[in-house]
Order: sequence, then structure tokens, then C-alpha cells
Amino acid sequence: MKIHDWFDGPYPARVRIALAEKGLLSKTEFVSVNLWTGEHKKPEFLTINYSGTLPVLELDDGTLIAECTAITQYVDALVGSPSLTGETPLEKGLIHMMTKRAEIEFLDAVSVYFHHATPGLGPDVELYQNPEWGNRMRDKAIRGMRYFDDLLQQRPYIAGESFSMADIAVLGGMIFASLVKLPVPDECVALLEWHARMQERPSVQQWRAMVERGAPLR
Amino acid sequence: MKIHDWFDGPYPARVRIALAEKGLLSKTEFVSVNLWTGEHKKPEFLTINYSGTLPVLELDDGTLIAECTAITQYVDALVGSPSLTGETPLEKGLIHMMTKRAEIEFLDAVSVYFHHATPGLGPDVELYQNPEWGNRMRDKAIRGMRYFDDLLQQRPYIAGESFSMADIAVLGGMIFASLVKLPVPDECVALLEWHARMQERPSVQQWRAMVERGAPLR
Repeated sequence: MKIHDWFDGPYPARVRIALAEKGLLSKTEFVSVNLWTGEHKKPEFLTINYSGTLPVLELDDGTLIAECTAITQYVDALVGSPSLTGETPLEKGLIHMMTKRAEIEFLDAVSVYFHHATPGLGPDVELYQNPEWGNRMRDKAIRGMRYFDDLLQQRPYIAGESFSMADIAVLGGMIFASLVKLPVPDECVALLEWHARMQERPSVQQWRAMVERGAPLR
Repeated sequence: MKIHDWFDGPYPARVRIALAEKGLLSKTEFVSVNLWTGEHKKPEFLTINYSGTLPVLELDDGTLIAECTAITQYVDALVGSPSLTGETPLEKGLIHMMTKRAEIEFLDAVSVYFHHATPGLGPDVELYQNPEWGNRMRDKAIRGMRYFDDLLQQRPYIAGESFSMADIAVLGGMIFASLVKLPVPDECVALLEWHARMQERPSVQQWRAMVERGAPLR
């Protein structure tokens, strides 16, 4: 299978880490879509993903699956345990809730801040910006960090007792926040400790090694 | 189990229709959270759902599950087939993708339009509005209708050959669009035909009957 993505994108990171957790990274071909030239907003790519976002999974028969949660759900069901998306109804419900919460309260908010209240991907790509909205989303993301810090004072992982897709979504938020230099408040000790713990996971180390290898030649 | 929601809300509709599909509607107690007085943004409710949105599922042991997709995933796993969220890896992936796409390209866009570029829930609840952003999301929602119309020219249901959670998400968009008087373009014949077909489903009829019974007394 192929993943259309960009090597150091925060959303691509979510799927690359999930693939690494499932042992599928070496079985995946990566096709570069250059965010910095706006390749993901061009007509050719919009036929691959109407929403113009990365990453997209392409199966051998040409079937396309966009959206990090959907791709993670696919690869998780493909390989089986240990599960990233939950095995019981309760686990599935809680993991999907916390994944969505990680998106709306943190990762997506950082993304809107980046694209609307900073130069983002540059003037050729950011054809419309709403800085007021972007800055509001920055403040929301910082509140989100505090929310997840509170949560991690009470439990080892974002959705409970086990690592899951929800941890990967919050990692996506941390990766994006670091790229846009939006620091985690010092007092968010539990969030920072969880983040340090996540860096020890082989999947995160494999993702980081791929990033450090740098941008692919086209 | 309990659902905290408001009787005619578009997001609540998604979960009520899912519950009806699974035969769980009569086993569910509904707790009213009045959107029009902003009860969902008050501190008491924010302890139930940090994001301040409806609906929220409360299990008998007090466990809380927010977010429509997460609640649907929970109830779907609880009862089993016919599945709303897919049985094979591919079905799961495609249904989650199309559900998310229904949200970002249609339902959530209508919601932002309502809360930011119309009086929304009124000045006591809408404490911040960004009309420019709201109007942009209105335009996005209309493009979304055209996208789903194109899709439904090629397949009977949003995620393929079977009814799923993704159809319910697009129904949520149609319900919200109707509430805010954002008409579907006449030329979107396939979308309108699909919508008429959806009205024949017992689950949608049960949902509509609950809405017509009107607002609950408090």
C-alpha cells in the first residue's frame, strides 16, 4: 500500500506512527505531496482527496482512504492486537472520543493558528487568512494543552490505561505545536512527562528517524 | 443509559437515529440540555463534556462518552449487525473517512455558519462571532452539498453499497441546513433523491416523531 503524505507533516506523523505501531512501516510506499508548494491544493491531488489534506492511504486496487482516524481504523483492523482503536465497545467509544477531542481542542486548533495567524505555508498557498480566528484557535490550543495535562494527572494514557490512537492524536498536536513554536506551558508537568514517555516508544523513534532523514528528492 | 442532548439539535439527531437503527431508542433516557439558554456552555455541563457540545452518552456507571462518532461506535459495537460502522477493515476505513468528510465539508461548516454569521443561539450564548469565517463556511457547506450529490450519482449510500454512520452524518448536515434555511441547490438531484429515500427509514421516522412531540418540559 501507498501513503500520500509529506515527511514532516503533523497529520502524516499520526499515520506513520500508527503504521510503525502495527509493524507496517516497511511494507508501505510513501508518495511525497509537497505541502510547501501547495501540491495538496492542486486539482490533481483534489481528485485523490476532495478535502485537500494529507495523508491519504492508497490500496493496491486504487481505493483511497483519507483522514487519519479512518486510515488508523483501517490498518488497526487489518493487523489486529495490540489494538490502537479498542476491542470492547467501551474502549472503542472512549478512544474515538479522546481522538476527536485531541483534534478539536488541540491539533486542529494549532493547524488553524498556523494557516491563519502565521505566514503558514507562504503567500502562494495561504490564499485566504483570518488572523482573528487563527489567534482564537491558538488560545484554544493552549487551553487544550492544560486540559490534557489535567487528564494525564489522573491516567497514564489519553484514553485510559493503554496506549491508543488518542495518544497519537495528542502527539500530532505536540508535533505541530513544536513546529509553530507554540510552547507547552511549564506547569503542564503531566503532559510534558507523558510526552517524554512517548519519545521512548519504538514507533515514535522510527517516525523521528524518517523525519531526520529529511525531505525526499522529487 | 442516558443521552444528554436537545430534542431537535442536528448533532443529537445523529445519535438518536443511530440508536433507532440499533433498536436502542426505547432503552435510552434523554436528559435535556437547553441549547437556547446556553446550558451546554455552563460550568456544570462542561464537567460532563469539556468541549461543551451535545450529545453526550452517560452509561449506568457514570462513564461519559461525547462526540457523535464515538457514541455511534460504542452503540454499534454493543449491539452488532447490521453494522453502522463497518465489519471489514475496508468498510471501517471508508465509513470513518466519509463520516469525517460529512462533518468537515458539510455539517460542521453549516454549524459554524449558524453560530458565526447568523444570530445563532442569540446574543447571550453567542459571545464571540466571526461573520467572515461563518460566511466562508456557508460557501464551503454548499460546495459540500455538490460534492455529496456527485458521489450519490455513483453509489446508493454515502460510503458505498450500504447504509452507514456516514449517511447519518450527511443527514445531520441536511437537518442543520434546513434549520438555518440553507437550501440544497435544485440541481443536486441525486442528493435530494437520497434524502427522500432516507426519510422512509424507520429510524429517521422515529427521530422525526420525537422532534414533532416538541421541546420537553423542564
